[in-house]
Amino acid sequence: MSTTASIDAGTRSGAVLNVSLVGAGFIGRVHAQCIAAHAATRLAAVFDTDESAASALAARHGARVAGSLGEITGSGETDAVVIASSTDSHGEIARACARAGKPFLCEKPLDTHRDAAVETVRYVREAGVLAGIGFNRRFDRQYAALKRAVGEGEVGRVEMMHLTSRSHAPPTLDYVKKSGGQLRDKGSHFFDLACWIAGERPTEIHAAGACLIEPRFAEYGDVDTAMILLRMPSGALCHLNFSRRTAYGADERIEVSGSGGRVESRHPIPVDVALYRGDAIHQKGLHQHWYERIESTYPAQLAAFVEALEHPGREFPALIDGLVAEAIADAGMRSLRTNRPEPIDYEFDV
Amino acid sequence: MSTTASIDAGTRSGAVLNVSLVGAGFIGRVHAQCIAAHAATRLAAVFDTDESAASALAARHGARVAGSLGEITGSGETDAVVIASSTDSHGEIARACARAGKPFLCEKPLDTHRDAAVETVRYVREAGVLAGIGFNRRFDRQYAALKRAVGEGEVGRVEMMHLTSRSHAPPTLDYVKKSGGQLRDKGSHFFDLACWIAGERPTEIHAAGACLIEPRFAEYGDVDTAMILLRMPSGALCHLNFSRRTAYGADERIEVSGSGGRVESRHPIPVDVALYRGDAIHQKGLHQHWYERIESTYPAQLAAFVEALEHPGREFPALIDGLVAEAIADAGMRSLRTNRPEPIDYEFDV
Amino acid sequence: MSTTASIDAGTRSGAVLNVSLVGAGFIGRVHAQCIAAHAATRLAAVFDTDESAASALAARHGARVAGSLGEITGSGETDAVVIASSTDSHGEIARACARAGKPFLCEKPLDTHRDAAVETVRYVREAGVLAGIGFNRRFDRQYAALKRAVGEGEVGRVEMMHLTSRSHAPPTLDYVKKSGGQLRDKGSHFFDLACWIAGERPTEIHAAGACLIEPRFAEYGDVDTAMILLRMPSGALCHLNFSRRTAYGADERIEVSGSGGRVESRHPIPVDVALYRGDAIHQKGLHQHWYERIESTYPAQLAAFVEALEHPGREFPALIDGLVAEAIADAGMRSLRTNRPEPIDYEFDV
Amino acid sequence: MSTTASIDAGTRSGAVLNVSLVGAGFIGRVHAQCIAAHAATRLAAVFDTDESAASALAARHGARVAGSLGEITGSGETDAVVIASSTDSHGEIARACARAGKPFLCEKPLDTHRDAAVETVRYVREAGVLAGIGFNRRFDRQYAALKRAVGEGEVGRVEMMHLTSRSHAPPTLDYVKKSGGQLRDKGSHFFDLACWIAGERPTEIHAAGACLIEPRFAEYGDVDTAMILLRMPSGALCHLNFSRRTAYGADERIEVSGSGGRVESRHPIPVDVALYRGDAIHQKGLHQHWYERIESTYPAQLAAFVEALEHPGREFPALIDGLVAEAIADAGMRSLRTNRPEPIDYEFDV
Repeated sequence: MSTTASIDAGTRSGAVLNVSLVGAGFIGRVHAQCIAAHAATRLAAVFDTDESAASALAARHGARVAGSLGEITGSGETDAVVIASSTDSHGEIARACARAGKPFLCEKPLDTHRDAAVETVRYVREAGVLAGIGFNRRFDRQYAALKRAVGEGEVGRVEMMHLTSRSHAPPTLDYVKKSGGQLRDKGSHFFDLACWIAGERPTEIHAAGACLIEPRFAEYGDVDTAMILLRMPSGALCHLNFSRRTAYGADERIEVSGSGGRVESRHPIPVDVALYRGDAIHQKGLHQHWYERIESTYPAQLAAFVEALEHPGREFPALIDGLVAEAIADAGMRSLRTNRPEPIDYEFDV
Repeated sequence: MSTTASIDAGTRSGAVLNVSLVGAGFIGRVHAQCIAAHAATRLAAVFDTDESAASALAARHGARVAGSLGEITGSGETDAVVIASSTDSHGEIARACARAGKPFLCEKPLDTHRDAAVETVRYVREAGVLAGIGFNRRFDRQYAALKRAVGEGEVGRVEMMHLTSRSHAPPTLDYVKKSGGQLRDKGSHFFDLACWIAGERPTEIHAAGACLIEPRFAEYGDVDTAMILLRMPSGALCHLNFSRRTAYGADERIEVSGSGGRVESRHPIPVDVALYRGDAIHQKGLHQHWYERIESTYPAQLAAFVEALEHPGREFPALIDGLVAEAIADAGMRSLRTNRPEPIDYEFDV
Repeated sequence: MSTTASIDAGTRSGAVLNVSLVGAGFIGRVHAQCIAAHAATRLAAVFDTDESAASALAARHGARVAGSLGEITGSGETDAVVIASSTDSHGEIARACARAGKPFLCEKPLDTHRDAAVETVRYVREAGVLAGIGFNRRFDRQYAALKRAVGEGEVGRVEMMHLTSRSHAPPTLDYVKKSGGQLRDKGSHFFDLACWIAGERPTEIHAAGACLIEPRFAEYGDVDTAMILLRMPSGALCHLNFSRRTAYGADERIEVSGSGGRVESRHPIPVDVALYRGDAIHQKGLHQHWYERIESTYPAQLAAFVEALEHPGREFPALIDGLVAEAIADAGMRSLRTNRPEPIDYEFDV
Repeated sequence: MSTTASIDAGTRSGAVLNVSLVGAGFIGRVHAQCIAAHAATRLAAVFDTDESAASALAARHGARVAGSLGEITGSGETDAVVIASSTDSHGEIARACARAGKPFLCEKPLDTHRDAAVETVRYVREAGVLAGIGFNRRFDRQYAALKRAVGEGEVGRVEMMHLTSRSHAPPTLDYVKKSGGQLRDKGSHFFDLACWIAGERPTEIHAAGACLIEPRFAEYGDVDTAMILLRMPSGALCHLNFSRRTAYGADERIEVSGSGGRVESRHPIPVDVALYRGDAIHQKGLHQHWYERIESTYPAQLAAFVEALEHPGREFPALIDGLVAEAIADAGMRSLRTNRPEPIDYEFDV
């Protein structure tokens, strides 16, 4: 959707989709804003176990407050649901949506445990509703352009991939405790990107990590700095590196090289102003917060979800993609402990 | 306003400002979207002589359609007005707002003729309402950062300035006919930026131009390619160059050098993905449309206007700044004809 | 000549050219080093009125010291001469070379006065020797690539050109006194580049200048900061800006835009290392000295001179190109005084 | 040594060092050119088992041809020796130099087998002559600047390092057969850089590789594409990636991040000219040949060797540094086979 088109959207002739939201925390508010701004969607209702949060958010966008999940899934007014509640409730809400025949977009991960997640995927599949997982980074304009270049053969046969994901500031200990670990929490987004870009799933992972930033993360079996190697069936080698804290902003980069060339998604410079003084050039730096870096992926993700709803068959990250990324993370967690490459088990095929 | 703050804006405690809009064309729609998205403003009413345009826009944002200008200026519901109608109606609407005691933000220029514009400025000043002119480029994050660097002495005493303003595609002949000429139409934004950044007004202008892109522009006494030299009272020299059509997107750059260094606002690369093949690197290019390049200035301009309304004394481009830019453009038009440097007459001081 | 070729040059089969040098100052030493390093040339003899300078330089490169100019022009050992003596001796030495049938490469300008220079060009032409002028910047790899791109139509019909030439540090007053003025001293190199790249000679020049760096330059009728506008017969507009002192190194850039695109030669970053800290990126800056910036042009110029000697008809900057650049500078000096565009007189055609 | 200083070098007062050369192949010719160009050195004699190569090279630089190695080591004329012969002769020549009390600079590796190399290091140490190994990349201006930044604490405590080394074109099968493998041949330079920059030696290496470019390399137990992980005693993680062939020139990059920031040495763009057309920017690419990329390291290496000769105690890569890099490569070769992290054995300490 071009920018000018967005200004000219007032004349859109199609019906408006009523989208309801479960979860009024930070990411819930991000989704609410996207739904309100998109020309084809309307925020219908908001549910959160924290009722005051739900009320404030609903008020801001002229939506209804739902007193229970059932008021959302059971409502004829709701055409689709966005699930942005706490991780441990994702599976249950997803199944409720499926039962009610409501298509949904669920923040990742689908569940805290693999077996439960697999069960949910089966359940949703049988219900036959369109269900997407929130791999929003696929909608980053730069990653999408890079994926397109690789897909169109611009770099030939892929030989090496490098993905960098580094946050500006470490999460709290409390967050780490519930996060499932760096490889799942942040990693799964990038494992998904690696598979999506390469068009194949790795067979083996070697993960090396350390607590160089916050030693207490080790108490929860976690690391704050990691380097990962994935082996692809094609023979391609894929390196990822993760850090919970840079001293220079949010750093996300991807590069892919192959028999025909190399493509890279550089880190964006949001204010490209440079000062030349003496023997140096001082440039404004990277986005200072992870959200600023990927802010634009949320409206793009919603737009793609709407496209997928309106045009069956359009590509959108599926629940199974979430299982794949989690399987890679699981094997990576094992490799962190064994300090050996570990095979990756995708035997959940549903 | 930080991005995260915008997501968290639901909790804003202050009263909401009711902003009404005159003009539902392209720029009017841009303003409407900004007013709807800003946490502190609400689109109250829309007026346009084209009633169906007003209705469509009002409907999209849940606003009222006004049947006449008076229904906006006379309404207790309207706290402020944005004037985005056709140029020849700006003065009259501005005076109506002033008369009704409504603060307003008016797209430039304030009027088609200098005398009328001066008259309007006097009228508004006597009425004592806050009135801003739409020099939105001052709110470009890059230009603002550059202005700040110069203001803080990062480049020392200013010696040379270079401003580049080149559109991706030429306007229609019909547009050119009414535009007042390239130096007024596009130029006045950059004359304003030059004065604002330098902190002084030029005394003399030399303008050289040609019709290299569209010979028929000459029929209206216009040029499509121009190079301008401004002499500043401090002795600094300022070059501007304008083009109605590049073959490579919308190109806006500013650089300032002085006794202590040089600062430049580079052209943003919206999708910074690069492909390395053979002996070349192929990078995605510039914004392809002028609006994409400056899209982000509109919400920033509205935010600053709200700040100025809530906190008297905050800087916002004033109507007089519009007169200054037009005076430079007038002298530039004269120089185009005489092919000589021409003095600039600011004897409108009101 | 590729770099690897230079290493493999030991096997060159052709005869070695004996090149002698007049002038053992800084630029003379630069030429001596180039002659010694080129696989096809040998430094034969060195003459300088300062005999000890000549001796030291000759010793360093295993060359003969000449006791007089005649010992160079009269020697069967000398195949070609490089003239790098003081400006006021260029004409006389050039004529002596011509008389002796020795091809030569002369540092610019050919003479301190136009009439004398024209006379010398005629004299040399009648003698029929190959004579080049030291417009070494044409051999800058970047400028040469840019010229090639323009010549091959990559930017379509040229509409605008911008040339920036800024030195890191101002010359001494004593130098300024003899320099002929900024527009001649530094400017003529860039006037030549403009003509060479555009493939046409400007008809009119407007020059605006000021002493913003060193007020005492005004005592010699000179400026230290200048902005120039050239009008080309095709209608293209060309801006140049000169500064005698930046606070950020030696800044030389050229850009050309036209109906089909835009090409730019960016300022090289000799040590491209960047430090990311906090919200900034600190990059190593520009060359800090003009010589470092253009050092590589001297061996490339010599290589092209050798090519021209060995293959008649190869392009090399001719003495007439020096007259053209001086004519533009002369008109520019006039414009500085009249503050008006001035026509350029090329009526020296020889 | 600044560039201008090099032009002014004729006045150097110290004695000239007579440097002799063993080996007149490509790298020998590179060294010869450096020795001839350096103000403080003179190419004294050249020896090669291919006498005609030695003669041609000696003639080009006015040096003597030595009929045997003894004519070099036994000559009072030779102050120092550069060893650039075939790898299997390095050890013997190094010992001959040591025996004769001649300081030397030896191309890496010191020997084809670890035990022999260790033996040679001991021998040389006992002889007490200054002996350097040709880790020329340490003298790359960019790598040196990056090392300096890390050493001065600009990035704080090092957490992650990334080194990229990719050649433009694969070597011949014949070369691969004798090369010792990609990890030794190219890798050892970068293992050395990693240790030098980090200021510590890795304890463990994991190497993953594949023949994606030339399957026949596998016949010699070699890979053409590799990703390496080094664990440092400090906990820092270091990734290296090697490729025998890019489709986009010679790509060498290093980046280091830590608790205080990140520093990167970007790939140089030798001709920084860019063409803007449509929605793309086409920039000239990387150096197309590995030698062009590192050409400037050879004169810098020689200058540092001269410094070390004249000022005992100055840092210069020592023979032991060569053993360290080879030990890392050895463990890496083992890891390629076991597909497990392998400890690195430095038990050669001499």
